Amino acid sequence: MNRKPSNPLNNLPEWKKLKKHAGTINRKENHLKYLISGKGRMEKFSLKGAGIFYDFSRQRVNAKTMELLFKLAENRGLKKQFKSMTEGEKVNNTENRAALHTASRSFSADPLFVNGKDIMPDMISVRKKIKEFAFKIHKGEIRGTTGKVFEHVVVIGIGGSYLGPEFVAAALKHLAIKKIKMHFLSNVDIHNFGEIAASIDPESTIWIVISKSYTTSETAANTNQAYEFMKQKELDPAKHFVTVTSKGSPGDDPSNPVVASFHMFDFIGGRYSVTSAVGGVPLSLYLGYDVFERFLKGAEEMDIHTKEAPPECNLPLVAALLSVWNNNFLHYPAQAVIPYASPLSKLAPHIQQLNMESNGKSVTKEGDALDVSAGTIIFGEPGTNAQHSFFQLAHQGRPFPVDFIGVIKPSYEKYGFKSKGVTNHQELWANLIAQPAALACGKDDTNGAKRFEGNRPSSTILLNDLSPENIGRLLSLYEAKTVYEAFIWGINPFDQFGVELGKSLASGVRKKMAEKNNNPEYSFEDADPITKFYLEKLF
Amino acid sequence: MNRKPSNPLNNLPEWKKLKKHAGTINRKENHLKYLISGKGRMEKFSLKGAGIFYDFSRQRVNAKTMELLFKLAENRGLKKQFKSMTEGEKVNNTENRAALHTASRSFSADPLFVNGKDIMPDMISVRKKIKEFAFKIHKGEIRGTTGKVFEHVVVIGIGGSYLGPEFVAAALKHLAIKKIKMHFLSNVDIHNFGEIAASIDPESTIWIVISKSYTTSETAANTNQAYEFMKQKELDPAKHFVTVTSKGSPGDDPSNPVVASFHMFDFIGGRYSVTSAVGGVPLSLYLGYDVFERFLKGAEEMDIHTKEAPPECNLPLVAALLSVWNNNFLHYPAQAVIPYASPLSKLAPHIQQLNMESNGKSVTKEGDALDVSAGTIIFGEPGTNAQHSFFQLAHQGRPFPVDFIGVIKPSYEKYGFKSKGVTNHQELWANLIAQPAALACGKDDTNGAKRFEGNRPSSTILLNDLSPENIGRLLSLYEAKTVYEAFIWGINPFDQFGVELGKSLASGVRKKMAEKNNNPEYSFEDADPITKFYLEKLF
Repeated sequence: MNRKPSNPLNNLPEWKKLKKHAGTINRKENHLKYLISGKGRMEKFSLKGAGIFYDFSRQRVNAKTMELLFKLAENRGLKKQFKSMTEGEKVNNTENRAALHTASRSFSADPLFVNGKDIMPDMISVRKKIKEFAFKIHKGEIRGTTGKVFEHVVVIGIGGSYLGPEFVAAALKHLAIKKIKMHFLSNVDIHNFGEIAASIDPESTIWIVISKSYTTSETAANTNQAYEFMKQKELDPAKHFVTVTSKGSPGDDPSNPVVASFHMFDFIGGRYSVTSAVGGVPLSLYLGYDVFERFLKGAEEMDIHTKEAPPECNLPLVAALLSVWNNNFLHYPAQAVIPYASPLSKLAPHIQQLNMESNGKSVTKEGDALDVSAGTIIFGEPGTNAQHSFFQLAHQGRPFPVDFIGVIKPSYEKYGFKSKGVTNHQELWANLIAQPAALACGKDDTNGAKRFEGNRPSSTILLNDLSPENIGRLLSLYEAKTVYEAFIWGINPFDQFGVELGKSLASGVRKKMAEKNNNPEYSFEDADPITKFYLEKLF
Repeated sequence: MNRKPSNPLNNLPEWKKLKKHAGTINRKENHLKYLISGKGRMEKFSLKGAGIFYDFSRQRVNAKTMELLFKLAENRGLKKQFKSMTEGEKVNNTENRAALHTASRSFSADPLFVNGKDIMPDMISVRKKIKEFAFKIHKGEIRGTTGKVFEHVVVIGIGGSYLGPEFVAAALKHLAIKKIKMHFLSNVDIHNFGEIAASIDPESTIWIVISKSYTTSETAANTNQAYEFMKQKELDPAKHFVTVTSKGSPGDDPSNPVVASFHMFDFIGGRYSVTSAVGGVPLSLYLGYDVFERFLKGAEEMDIHTKEAPPECNLPLVAALLSVWNNNFLHYPAQAVIPYASPLSKLAPHIQQLNMESNGKSVTKEGDALDVSAGTIIFGEPGTNAQHSFFQLAHQGRPFPVDFIGVIKPSYEKYGFKSKGVTNHQELWANLIAQPAALACGKDDTNGAKRFEGNRPSSTILLNDLSPENIGRLLSLYEAKTVYEAFIWGINPFDQFGVELGKSLASGVRKKMAEKNNNPEYSFEDADPITKFYLEKLF
């Protein structure tokens, strides 16, 4: 059993006041359609910072709500906690580590000490090594076994070693180096491997294996499969594999030579690692290092905003407060992320991991039972696709808050043919403007089937365009929002012990399978009946 | 205001008993770890039908739960309602239409009457026309303007005209005709168009426009953009466009000639239409008509099972009862769909639409307020990817039921290299076996951060392989589950009035944009302040 919390959130005066205040907001007269018609609503309930516009005028809040939320922020020492994090304090207390993803995109000249050692020289040297490496690959100074230049980049990695790079690669595809094709081999499912094997030219393929420990089962199995595949084609793996891993891991072992090896650090968690070598190596090969560096600079800009802007003007902090408000006081269990931009189609899967793995916890960072629900179910698809898919439920079924994301300038200016008097991009925007309004205001009707209750909250985030800087800013915004939520709840957003039990059970099952592969006489008698049933189905 | 329900679910004796019984299941001694250790648990709580195995032994139910749920099924006349649906009764009462997606894959020789007319000849002739058309395209008997054979198929459609075909195309990619490349142009976002325009050879491209009314704004805008694009390349649209639409719609107008036009019918809703010409035309071009017909036959087989199997042996019916049990009695607001097969990566987005658009309702089919929550938030990613993404929350945070889906035989047998003594496919299965067990049983630990509460429910669905028949069966299983849920709640799963308000507001915004495009002096003064703000951002 968990220990009882020593300092329950429900006992905080700020929390109690917010609970009571939620009763007021739930009253009919505080329906969103009334709240948003307040004078200067838009000006009072929106922010601009680090180049991003954040409109929360369609959240179910009034001035009093925000006042109470900012008091909660003060009580929980949010800005101080964030500062400690960026200064190298061991905020990942359960694993006794710092959490310094912000350092991976810092261009500051100041030193930053972890365990008495300045880590900034390492950060800078990894970036420099990536830059030089990408240059050599693109110039054809590093080539494969048969002398062909590299044109296919296959990233072997899962979870944090996959979702972040995939999100950024999709978002910035319009800037990709023409001849380079990018593939992601994440799932241990052999279909994933088979499809990639069928679509690459092995001689011009470079494989990037990303794994901090270099022991992740899925990544190891895929790497072995890829090694074998290359050897069968009489290609030398040492000339086709790159590793991104911890110093001294099996992937950083000179007896197993590779084209190059880049270091990861224990103070940057997987789901926060896309600005480190995890994103740096594949994205620099796909987009060029300069584009990657612009992406880093955007993220750094939002980090600085997050650290320096006062709470009332602080985008990620306000977003986190609203998330907790929706979660714990208005009791929405889920949150949709709907970018009105197809290149951001991988944003929701990335945020899903970032947020759900960080904050899907039931204990405080001290290991006590948490007395409120933390974590939110995050899901999403691009708009307008989502409108034609699950928005029926958003409008007339179980309500959930939505983050709408809009991009002012599209990357394809040349297709400007107009339908119904507007361009496709304007049509997209007509929907982006209409949906939050429809969700907020609803519409009465004597026919129940055509009645819209409204009062469904949303935020709207605007990017000027899909520049690398803006993608970096957006990433950092969601990362900081996630850790601010955790700081409010008092949980550790940097560990993930919840994934361990499944791994350990899978390891037991794998052993039985390996036994059976070795010895067809082996029987599964000692497994529990359900496991036995499935093992027999497979063999 | 909605009318009060005339016959509230909460007043049903069966509903009341289930509510009381949920209290018993919530007791400590009915934790899943105890329930699943019951003698013969697996045999008693699993089913096989139409070639699919369905294991619900890890749902939080005992014999009493199932007994009460079957009484509810009887009270709600589920099987009778399903039969009426397949016989052409106007079960879509709010739109005064039948719902006959089952007819689109029926190979029965019996007539089926709608409004006094036998519709089966239409079903059969559409299939025949698709078969002949696909044959001619593949043989090069129908070619583009410049005489090139078609190699690129671009589907223009959104929602139901997109998600189903995309799911099946991805699932059966291993059977695709080698030279054919498939593209989906769904989103009105010009990035979607721009990317496709950059990756096709226009001379060998055939565009399939799918829209029942042929007035869907997104599809119309994309079709116009594509027409313009082809004309700029001096290619004749009449030789490159195909339509799938209602008889007599603007897409079925001889004055606007196309290569071929295929009919849709008002008794098949978008999200249920993948077995009609909506899926038939693109999938037959991509996979060949024979593969498409095998897919239909699998779906038909599950339809027959659904209609004929007694409730206790009826896969979709049991799945629907469990869904309502989880939703209304155990109060889980969300449900994950996790296929341990990368080719099923588009299953979750399809089921998300199918289920959330069908059942995201707050009124009964009579238009009365529903007194319980209908609809579930559906989300998912393939396993093991999902394990490395959001499963932290599944194990240690906010619980949600999971549908695990496993495939016994992979489609790529040739890559059999072993890691840790097992093939990649076995490694995948080790995880598929381990996860439901970990979720159900949990694990105690003195360290709160490492404690797993367990008691998290899941089902496991097994397919023998990724044959077209099995994909058809799986599709029909989820379709029938969805409508059975609706029949339990007494809602209409075939209308979608919830999407109308957003459309109508978007139309107002579009008009203002068109005015401004025409007249730069036009001001947005008469718009509400928030709309005005966004319009000015864009212009």
